[in-house]
Amino acid sequence: MNTPDVVFDVKRAHRIGLDESVFCAGKSARQIETILRDAAAREAGLLLTRLDAGKLADLPADLQAGLDYCDISHTAFFGPQRPVAIAGKVAIVAAGTSDAPVAREAERTLRHAGIAAGLIVDVGVAGLWRLMDRIEEIRRHPIVIAVAGMDAALASVLGGLYAGSLICVPTSVGYGAAERGRTALNAMLASCAPGLLVTNIDNGYGAACAALRMLGSMGLRQA
Amino acid sequence: MNTPDVVFDVKRAHRIGLDESVFCAGKSARQIETILRDAAAREAGLLLTRLDAGKLADLPADLQAGLDYCDISHTAFFGPQRPVAIAGKVAIVAAGTSDAPVAREAERTLRHAGIAAGLIVDVGVAGLWRLMDRIEEIRRHPIVIAVAGMDAALASVLGGLYAGSLICVPTSVGYGAAERGRTALNAMLASCAPGLLVTNIDNGYGAACAALRMLGSMGLRQA
Amino acid sequence: MNTPDVVFDVKRAHRIGLDESVFCAGKSARQIETILRDAAAREAGLLLTRLDAGKLADLPADLQAGLDYCDISHTAFFGPQRPVAIAGKVAIVAAGTSDAPVAREAERTLRHAGIAAGLIVDVGVAGLWRLMDRIEEIRRHPIVIAVAGMDAALASVLGGLYAGSLICVPTSVGYGAAERGRTALNAMLASCAPGLLVTNIDNGYGAACAALRMLGSMGLRQA
Amino acid sequence: MNTPDVVFDVKRAHRIGLDESVFCAGKSARQIETILRDAAAREAGLLLTRLDAGKLADLPADLQAGLDYCDISHTAFFGPQRPVAIAGKVAIVAAGTSDAPVAREAERTLRHAGIAAGLIVDVGVAGLWRLMDRIEEIRRHPIVIAVAGMDAALASVLGGLYAGSLICVPTSVGYGAAERGRTALNAMLASCAPGLLVTNIDNGYGAACAALRMLGSMGLRQA
Amino acid sequence: MNTPDVVFDVKRAHRIGLDESVFCAGKSARQIETILRDAAAREAGLLLTRLDAGKLADLPADLQAGLDYCDISHTAFFGPQRPVAIAGKVAIVAAGTSDAPVAREAERTLRHAGIAAGLIVDVGVAGLWRLMDRIEEIRRHPIVIAVAGMDAALASVLGGLYAGSLICVPTSVGYGAAERGRTALNAMLASCAPGLLVTNIDNGYGAACAALRMLGSMGLRQA
Amino acid sequence: MNTPDVVFDVKRAHRIGLDESVFCAGKSARQIETILRDAAAREAGLLLTRLDAGKLADLPADLQAGLDYCDISHTAFFGPQRPVAIAGKVAIVAAGTSDAPVAREAERTLRHAGIAAGLIVDVGVAGLWRLMDRIEEIRRHPIVIAVAGMDAALASVLGGLYAGSLICVPTSVGYGAAERGRTALNAMLASCAPGLLVTNIDNGYGAACAALRMLGSMGLRQA
Amino acid sequence: MNTPDVVFDVKRAHRIGLDESVFCAGKSARQIETILRDAAAREAGLLLTRLDAGKLADLPADLQAGLDYCDISHTAFFGPQRPVAIAGKVAIVAAGTSDAPVAREAERTLRHAGIAAGLIVDVGVAGLWRLMDRIEEIRRHPIVIAVAGMDAALASVLGGLYAGSLICVPTSVGYGAAERGRTALNAMLASCAPGLLVTNIDNGYGAACAALRMLGSMGLRQA
Amino acid sequence: MNTPDVVFDVKRAHRIGLDESVFCAGKSARQIETILRDAAAREAGLLLTRLDAGKLADLPADLQAGLDYCDISHTAFFGPQRPVAIAGKVAIVAAGTSDAPVAREAERTLRHAGIAAGLIVDVGVAGLWRLMDRIEEIRRHPIVIAVAGMDAALASVLGGLYAGSLICVPTSVGYGAAERGRTALNAMLASCAPGLLVTNIDNGYGAACAALRMLGSMGLRQA
Repeated sequence: MNTPDVVFDVKRAHRIGLDESVFCAGKSARQIETILRDAAAREAGLLLTRLDAGKLADLPADLQAGLDYCDISHTAFFGPQRPVAIAGKVAIVAAGTSDAPVAREAERTLRHAGIAAGLIVDVGVAGLWRLMDRIEEIRRHPIVIAVAGMDAALASVLGGLYAGSLICVPTSVGYGAAERGRTALNAMLASCAPGLLVTNIDNGYGAACAALRMLGSMGLRQA
Repeated sequence: MNTPDVVFDVKRAHRIGLDESVFCAGKSARQIETILRDAAAREAGLLLTRLDAGKLADLPADLQAGLDYCDISHTAFFGPQRPVAIAGKVAIVAAGTSDAPVAREAERTLRHAGIAAGLIVDVGVAGLWRLMDRIEEIRRHPIVIAVAGMDAALASVLGGLYAGSLICVPTSVGYGAAERGRTALNAMLASCAPGLLVTNIDNGYGAACAALRMLGSMGLRQA
Repeated sequence: MNTPDVVFDVKRAHRIGLDESVFCAGKSARQIETILRDAAAREAGLLLTRLDAGKLADLPADLQAGLDYCDISHTAFFGPQRPVAIAGKVAIVAAGTSDAPVAREAERTLRHAGIAAGLIVDVGVAGLWRLMDRIEEIRRHPIVIAVAGMDAALASVLGGLYAGSLICVPTSVGYGAAERGRTALNAMLASCAPGLLVTNIDNGYGAACAALRMLGSMGLRQA
Repeated sequence: MNTPDVVFDVKRAHRIGLDESVFCAGKSARQIETILRDAAAREAGLLLTRLDAGKLADLPADLQAGLDYCDISHTAFFGPQRPVAIAGKVAIVAAGTSDAPVAREAERTLRHAGIAAGLIVDVGVAGLWRLMDRIEEIRRHPIVIAVAGMDAALASVLGGLYAGSLICVPTSVGYGAAERGRTALNAMLASCAPGLLVTNIDNGYGAACAALRMLGSMGLRQA
Repeated sequence: MNTPDVVFDVKRAHRIGLDESVFCAGKSARQIETILRDAAAREAGLLLTRLDAGKLADLPADLQAGLDYCDISHTAFFGPQRPVAIAGKVAIVAAGTSDAPVAREAERTLRHAGIAAGLIVDVGVAGLWRLMDRIEEIRRHPIVIAVAGMDAALASVLGGLYAGSLICVPTSVGYGAAERGRTALNAMLASCAPGLLVTNIDNGYGAACAALRMLGSMGLRQA
Repeated sequence: MNTPDVVFDVKRAHRIGLDESVFCAGKSARQIETILRDAAAREAGLLLTRLDAGKLADLPADLQAGLDYCDISHTAFFGPQRPVAIAGKVAIVAAGTSDAPVAREAERTLRHAGIAAGLIVDVGVAGLWRLMDRIEEIRRHPIVIAVAGMDAALASVLGGLYAGSLICVPTSVGYGAAERGRTALNAMLASCAPGLLVTNIDNGYGAACAALRMLGSMGLRQA
Repeated sequence: MNTPDVVFDVKRAHRIGLDESVFCAGKSARQIETILRDAAAREAGLLLTRLDAGKLADLPADLQAGLDYCDISHTAFFGPQRPVAIAGKVAIVAAGTSDAPVAREAERTLRHAGIAAGLIVDVGVAGLWRLMDRIEEIRRHPIVIAVAGMDAALASVLGGLYAGSLICVPTSVGYGAAERGRTALNAMLASCAPGLLVTNIDNGYGAACAALRMLGSMGLRQA
Repeated sequence: MNTPDVVFDVKRAHRIGLDESVFCAGKSARQIETILRDAAAREAGLLLTRLDAGKLADLPADLQAGLDYCDISHTAFFGPQRPVAIAGKVAIVAAGTSDAPVAREAERTLRHAGIAAGLIVDVGVAGLWRLMDRIEEIRRHPIVIAVAGMDAALASVLGGLYAGSLICVPTSVGYGAAERGRTALNAMLASCAPGLLVTNIDNGYGAACAALRMLGSMGLRQA
């Protein structure tokens, strides 16, 4: 694998407790194929993110067959996956249907690491009752990932109702003044509720990694 | 008054039903004095906005004495004011204490036009119970002016709970990612709640003028 | 309909007087089909917005046949529609031909709610006579929706000539310094005419919802 | 004068027909004094721009006495000035009182070059009658400098009513969405009226220089 | 032609001396066809701008045959065109080959109005000798349109060498820090050379209209 | 305390486990005095943030005497403070001396809640050895708050060396391209290291609140 | 070659020691063909940059055959190329695989000028050991080109470890807060390490030209 | 000196060949005093940058007396300074008088390191003859630092005339569209001249450090 242009950070899992994963957005089908063949040779399990349907179709049939692909989040599992080791610790809460791809990217990243997360979608605060109906369920989790675009008001409301660790993921949902996620990002950062933490726009993967770090801090997994 | 640099739009009240008012931010104390003396000669009542304490102190004592000044909103009434003609139609709802100057600028502008507005401050959604305690009171008004800075989540939550006409005023409260009110402005514009309308940042005066236009549309005052 | 990723806000019409509508931009043809079949089962009438021609063509033929589609505004009516209950209360005024899609999105949204709106297009202020020819007609409506891109000067001029409730919709028409509608948005917000209210860029749907809120405030419809 | 840090472009008048002038904003009182003493020695007439009152007060009394200072535009004439050679060719039209400093900077720059310009202030389009009252007078000038801040709608309206050369100067008047003049600048650049030309924000001096270039093109002065 | 969505400003030529032209970017082939048929019926000559090759190919063959199309500037003449009435008054100077489309849009707009302009391309200042070789030729024109992208340094250098009227057109040529033309625009506006005037990004048409206004001011054509 | 403009969220500690604190930046000395007198009456302990020296000096002498003020972080403790209940769980790591005010705001907020945090300042990565000297000490804490301005490279380097929960606080340190903290914020959000979480610019208080939420998730304190 | 729209700067190599190269992004296949035929006639060697595969395929077969194309960097050599004259002086260091296209554009530009550069890819600082493994090798070169996107932390770390001339190239790798390379650019400009120099985003060509200038300053090649 | 908040990077000179210097902008007079006393004790020579006159006046008289202060660049030398070891290798070229502070900051930083640089000010390209008069002198230096604000056209023109290493420093000189130096920065980055390298806005210190790195690469000083 170590061609001049690629040096895999194989020590990373060792060093910070986060597995290898493959961000496919900037890679060619040919490069992804090489990575998968290498992982197959090592019998390693991989998570692929941002793998769009076109690039998936360009992969050799045998590799496609070996992928467990999710067409909502554009993620895929390859090779052996961990069994679920932890459940009930992380809830993923999304404001609207359009936020589901990012929410599911977080869910799949956690699942790849052996964590089963609860998924609660379409509880945007413009219809406050939807959130209130689920708030007790949400409160049972020590870690919540809140996913929202546009005005991202869900984050502030949740921040006032929920006392645990709150990871906020702004999404690029919306148009015009939503500024491709910048408004949701800024609103989460400037929230009137204290102690919210924020990831990059659409970064469901990063939110899951942060949750993994926290689970390690809680002694529930090896960092 | 019609010096080469100033042409008062005396036909405006006639044309669009909104009285003269004096935006003091870009004017010298000398210019404001001239305007006040002229209004005094005409026995006209004036509203002054953005009159800071320093500029107020620079005015001649007799003019200062004739001003009804509010040091929260930096507005002043000069000369004869209208009696209250309409009440119970407009509520002004502000997220936090820091939004009070803008909320009160709206309240005073309405008062100058003979409208008594209800003022409900510090009902930001990070403490949702504060808003829920007042929501029935708010719902009794056909027009609501919502004032909020930072993430402006109040606007979206209110937009989902309240069915009447909702005028949103973003404020420049906050720092960093609040971007001097731009984030609140964008969040209100991109709100997930439908039918919200928005003014310029910190524009309590403009929100009140919009409410006056609506009261005219409702047949409650002469446009 | 309530799959894990979609929770329809069926209480919304009840709560804030605004019907269900389907924003199609972020949804797949398959998702839209599900929504339409569900509405058909409930014999509910729907408004679809941002439905582009490609996605329309991907819908099953029987659903396509059941849609009343407008290829200027990219909106569609599905199922039973309300009769016209109110007319002569809302005028939609657009600066140029390129603003027509947004103007018609507002018109169709109002029509879906039983409101017939007047539509006056191509009255941009660079040819001032075009607006002056129609100003008396415009003035007869208590509510005006002004749609304009580029410099959005129509809003300010109208704001000085018209005394009623004025809802301004900036459009993304223009290039370069028009900044995809940001300049029109800012110009409307910073207008020298008092009491203008503004929606998100290209948000004809939101402007119509705001007009519906106002008609409710006026007692003309149930909020 | 040619200290290591200052090389006066004495050939400029020769080369492009525009006189020396001194932009005082970034210069110390001591530097300005040196420049004035040098000009006095050469018996040269100078225009000083952006000379604020504080810096003026820091100059030696004899130099202060020799300055013809305008406290609206913060410009000063020093030494012998040209007589008026041309009149009736340039009109300066400003939207509001707050735009007067920029309008007068243009007027004074022209006066320094021997050109008497007409000055028409407070004709903003929110009160359209004010502009219509003066439009015939404006039309008599082959060159117009239009000065406006906030939404700068004056430029577009004038561009549709006036056929001559139109120089637009955006000002930093306004707050919030006016973005320190950026909105006025963009609105003028994106104007729906064809053939408008634009200068930097608050650049009355530059607008006057452009008018001087045009007068040269018209054969009315030596370039 | 006057369908509800289109009101041609037929009085414009009369009012400000600039002919009808058709900005095709936001119009469908069907709309353009209607406009051309209408012009044909009136035996009017038209200029079409921003007509890309795809849209051209979608027009009926007879209309395509009647168009004099330029595939560099994406402009077309339709119907009878004016003879050349004025020459030697306007030079168009472009920094690089990539700026040619904008330069030629200006040239063709002038030609449509009966003005023959000189065209001098690829004289960017990174190779200063190229500009110096042509500077005397440039100086013979009372009006110059300078077209440049990226850093737009051509404008400042020309502004120091040329005394006539200088219209600057920033282009969207470049990448990264060129910010789609914003850097060229800002550099021209902030130029150290006095009296430069600027149009919107890529607005060759607007620069030509400004030159036409100036030629009117010079008494060379009827405004 | 519940004047019309202030509604203290006294239920907050109950609801999300975070105590009352007073953000002084937008409040007058008079308002702060009122809040302190009220807290004194309730025998409550308060944290004050963003209390600049000038405002401190404007408070009555008895109140000043009762404040434990830190002139680096501009925070103050008022009234009874909690004893230290938890130590060794949170480290605060700052890139440079200029980041110390923000780092200490976080430290003091934690101290107010009974948490003793380690403080490690001036370990910016331009002198990598400084960080490497302390990395084992840092790794002993399950939660790290990383404070950095300018390019914020400390966050990425730490993210690759440290496996626990990492809260990143961008600061407004720097000039020009540092864009008042926006560059540090964006760099942290776009970090090549996975699982970093970010707060608003200069928000040491918010970072501490996030750490308190995490300590609650870890079962070390009552949420 | 000197058609009205193209004036090749053939004196450039003479004047500043940098050869002709062809930036293909804004040019048609037809224009590139003309340039290649002209170079063939002159027996000149050319470097082509930003030549995407589609445009390559549109060139005549004989020209395609004559191109030495690199599908990672989208560069091509045409005609006779210089032999390697200098080696071991320039190292190109890239943070990740996605930065390889820009790194290789720099490498190929240097190779075209007869310089063999070392290429070290995938040493991003989130896995610090990767860089530390190569640092001694890097230090042996007097000039280093550092290529990085997202947070660009590689530049600062390298700036603290390496004493030679350091040219930093930000890339547009990343999404959301990476802002198409603007964050990497700003982070490099605001770096805490002193003496870093920066090029435009993705400008591998420019970085190589800067290295060529430095090699000239070192007396290793003729400027 | 190693108080908890300050860890001096004393190994830096050793590691990358650049001496200690003190950036005073974010430090109190008390902190600067501590640093100076420490340097005095070590008999070390220091460079202080961004030391404004007010802060200078707040230092103890004995320390003030020991400072060699430059009130143009706001830099100071403290303690023993190196003799001049290298001359004639670096020229600093500034566009205008207002750029002198930044140019002199670079000059003084070089002087502190024992390098005498040539200083050529006020050669902005709006008066091209000024630059052409000095170009041969400039060309004699292998390294040039070009300092310019506003449109920064000097950089591009120089880049086309000068073949050596060119370090460009944008300055925050100008107003409006100059955007506090961002326009100059972008123009330099997007320059049409190849191989220009750029520092942060107003960063004369950084430009000098880059020149020192280059002199090291040339073997003229120890890195």
